[in-house]
Amino acid sequence: MGEFELLAKLRERLPPAGSKVVLGSGDDAAITVPGGATATSVDAIVDGVHFHREQAEMAQIGHKALATALSDLAAMGAEAGEAYVVLGVPSGLGEAQCLELLDGLLELAARTGTTLAGGDVTRAPALSLAVTVVGHAPSAERLVRRAGAQPGDLLVLTGEIGGAAAGLALLEEPGLASALPAEIAQRLRLRQLQPMPRLAAGRVLADQGARAMIDISDGLGADAGHLAAASGAQLRIDAATLPLAEGVLALADATGRDPLELAASGGEDYELLAAIPAERLEAAAAAVGELEKGTTLTPVGGVAAGAGVEIRLPGGALLKPAGFDQLRP
Amino acid sequence: MGEFELLAKLRERLPPAGSKVVLGSGDDAAITVPGGATATSVDAIVDGVHFHREQAEMAQIGHKALATALSDLAAMGAEAGEAYVVLGVPSGLGEAQCLELLDGLLELAARTGTTLAGGDVTRAPALSLAVTVVGHAPSAERLVRRAGAQPGDLLVLTGEIGGAAAGLALLEEPGLASALPAEIAQRLRLRQLQPMPRLAAGRVLADQGARAMIDISDGLGADAGHLAAASGAQLRIDAATLPLAEGVLALADATGRDPLELAASGGEDYELLAAIPAERLEAAAAAVGELEKGTTLTPVGGVAAGAGVEIRLPGGALLKPAGFDQLRP
Repeated sequence: MGEFELLAKLRERLPPAGSKVVLGSGDDAAITVPGGATATSVDAIVDGVHFHREQAEMAQIGHKALATALSDLAAMGAEAGEAYVVLGVPSGLGEAQCLELLDGLLELAARTGTTLAGGDVTRAPALSLAVTVVGHAPSAERLVRRAGAQPGDLLVLTGEIGGAAAGLALLEEPGLASALPAEIAQRLRLRQLQPMPRLAAGRVLADQGARAMIDISDGLGADAGHLAAASGAQLRIDAATLPLAEGVLALADATGRDPLELAASGGEDYELLAAIPAERLEAAAAAVGELEKGTTLTPVGGVAAGAGVEIRLPGGALLKPAGFDQLRP
Repeated sequence: MGEFELLAKLRERLPPAGSKVVLGSGDDAAITVPGGATATSVDAIVDGVHFHREQAEMAQIGHKALATALSDLAAMGAEAGEAYVVLGVPSGLGEAQCLELLDGLLELAARTGTTLAGGDVTRAPALSLAVTVVGHAPSAERLVRRAGAQPGDLLVLTGEIGGAAAGLALLEEPGLASALPAEIAQRLRLRQLQPMPRLAAGRVLADQGARAMIDISDGLGADAGHLAAASGAQLRIDAATLPLAEGVLALADATGRDPLELAASGGEDYELLAAIPAERLEAAAAAVGELEKGTTLTPVGGVAAGAGVEIRLPGGALLKPAGFDQLRP
């Protein structure tokens, strides 16, 4: 299977392009007319580093590669636009598997209104995907950065956390599943394998005046640290308020881990953490709740003058999630 | 060396961002205000596939990764804008080497007015770079596609070809260098290791009314085939007119290869092949000749009704470059 042949087959599967795309895949470059402002991010996943091929279906790998990239657009409050994908194909991976992978990616693209507008296929020692995504907003001011959180703001978190870390534990140690109802165990695995970027919630939070936002990909503790550093403020998180995904308590119990520590350090939940003016909480929660599947928005703490992150446990002690020490204040 | 630490060091080296970049590297996504139209392309290079680490300096690898991506923007007649880079780092590659690689990439970025606006660093089994580049034009109509060549148009080629293939031969078989003056051998190696994207020439050709354009990355024969297929026309190339890089004749002689075959199939020259209205030749050649280092523009054939590519040798026979058969007409 040559590069040209695979590219041609991949192109045949592409749905019609979005309205901003004048010329899609197949020329030297794609042509778009963005209007307004763009948010652009790139993310890569590599077999053996970010996922393990034997633990996931090919379609899930394609899905996750695009999802992790789109999550960065969600964190800006941008509308998904175009994606450009580099697929690194190891020897032994056949055409059918490449197409399954692409189908998983395209299904998420269709659900999120993303146009796959270009790409490159190359041989590589391990299956790898590098995905560049371009999102859109009416103006640069409408996009929400990590900097901007102000003392007095509330911290809000979409959805539930800990699920992706619990799912990873289940994939790596299948025997743990006996501690959970099968349906919940499967939901946790899917949180790890097929995360959904919070694009709609990100746009709603931007519309509701979010002052700073980040997606929880490296873990709540680490990403709160990024937001605190960029904003030059201290984030104070009340651990008792953290919305844990169903099954995280049972799984933490089965592994002897602290469920709050698991949730705050696990990462890959791809939920959004935002700082919003306190008076916007009610309207923001209502607007997020109206989204597909009734997404929740939970107040988890506040912004204060200072630096760094404090995650306070119910008894008053501080939680120190793993990986916390590598953060610069 | 952690990912965060390396990213922070890489960011410290970034020069000020271009005028369209509102927010550069360091947030969830970069923010730009493009105006007009954008051309976006992505290219990846992998150690052992597209280059061999032991044959190149780290700075050259960084240069080439960006150069091959920018060449696609040149082929659209776009102005270079932003680049987003995924760096896959194998174990054993140290921080100093990563920074050397980035310096090579940034030097070309500075020369071409490209802003490195984002990126991702990941562990990977082999050194690899995936580079997404975004170029700009006042409108979508000003960008030149592969489709659009019309019967009667002239085919023109920037610069000289065969140099990159000759350079590759010298890198793979160092003993061949004895067939050439040292200075010319070194120039040929640099054609392979440090290609220069023809951005200025691409913009001039677009301004001069080029109807279709492509960069010669897969070899003149293969890329002429792509342009012919997209345009629904036949490209007729007169082999005797092909501008061979200095030293290609001597190197072909030393290896027993046909120099025209080497030049037409070798690839990686990153010159531009364009179809222009015949009456624009003089003005286009003059305008290209005014660019830095007096770039040449050579008429190499014409466009006819039909399909496919004919490369005719001085005696009248047809040249069939390697890799030609895999082209769909």
